[in-house]
Amino acid sequence: MPHIQLADDLPGIRGAMAFRPETAKPLNELVEVLMRGPNSLTRAERELIATYVSYLNDCYYCQMSHGAIAAANLSGDEELVKRVKADFQHADISDKLKALLVIASKVQKGGKHVTADDVTAARNLGATGLEIHDAVLISAAFCMYNRYVDGLGTVQPRDEASYRERGKRVARDGYVTVSQEYLATHPVAR
Amino acid sequence: MPHIQLADDLPGIRGAMAFRPETAKPLNELVEVLMRGPNSLTRAERELIATYVSYLNDCYYCQMSHGAIAAANLSGDEELVKRVKADFQHADISDKLKALLVIASKVQKGGKHVTADDVTAARNLGATGLEIHDAVLISAAFCMYNRYVDGLGTVQPRDEASYRERGKRVARDGYVTVSQEYLATHPVAR
Repeated sequence: MPHIQLADDLPGIRGAMAFRPETAKPLNELVEVLMRGPNSLTRAERELIATYVSYLNDCYYCQMSHGAIAAANLSGDEELVKRVKADFQHADISDKLKALLVIASKVQKGGKHVTADDVTAARNLGATGLEIHDAVLISAAFCMYNRYVDGLGTVQPRDEASYRERGKRVARDGYVTVSQEYLATHPVAR
Repeated sequence: MPHIQLADDLPGIRGAMAFRPETAKPLNELVEVLMRGPNSLTRAERELIATYVSYLNDCYYCQMSHGAIAAANLSGDEELVKRVKADFQHADISDKLKALLVIASKVQKGGKHVTADDVTAARNLGATGLEIHDAVLISAAFCMYNRYVDGLGTVQPRDEASYRERGKRVARDGYVTVSQEYLATHPVAR
């Protein structure tokens, strides 16, 4: 049961966002620009970083949600998403993305864990300053989203089909659009 | 030295924001509504939560910046800010705020650390659902800001006077206004 009164039919972060639309707005705008804005990293690559960090933080809702969005951006390749979570160094992804996942995993532990060598390794594999910045911020942001979702004790359904379905919609329409739909049908009652 | 090329004269998160104004916008809007928007928690109380979480995450820039903003909202009472960081249970703050700081400290470790007992204790001391929500989100958000600031290896000056001066300005004018000033004078060069 959630720690505060959230709408029964809105699992995970959606219930929290409907409870507090004032903070939902910048939270959705942040994830929209980070994960879907113009970028030399593909949307799938960015979602894989978010999924991996959410996995490290043991947030079921976020790793399933973003894993499904990643898969939707990978023509449905759910196996690759699972492989990245289990052992990204041997997954079929670029060496550059592996180096960015190393940086993201350090940020998940704490910002000071990132070393100059981690950054040099990423640069030597072609990562730009912007890509390194975004790997750091995506990891930091999911350390927030994960704590928000779990810290409120939100409901997190176990049926994978619902995440798959929603992942396709977010991949198609974006975070802001999808959130506006459920926020419009859930007037704040707190 | 920062891990990526940031403006020399913008310490901490300011250099990161000038590097990436697209993400700076929602990051500033989030902190503005969380820390300064209409709320039954005072601005000082919210800044004390942010300062304490930044202290737990060992982020010098953030604990100094938000400690200074908290002090500015407390008629300059820097001793109270130091006391909250060192031993909030014996600081001269309300029992409700102490209970919210307990929740915030659990979120800092990870969202799942928050227990129903922690939340009941806060409610019994008068905390509303919104205040509990905001304590969780402020803590989660500073787990992001702290990682962002340290994960990029930003410059973090040690002179306390500069934080004090800036804290007064942010307390007076707000995050969005102050950030717009330095973003306007630092065109993106990446």
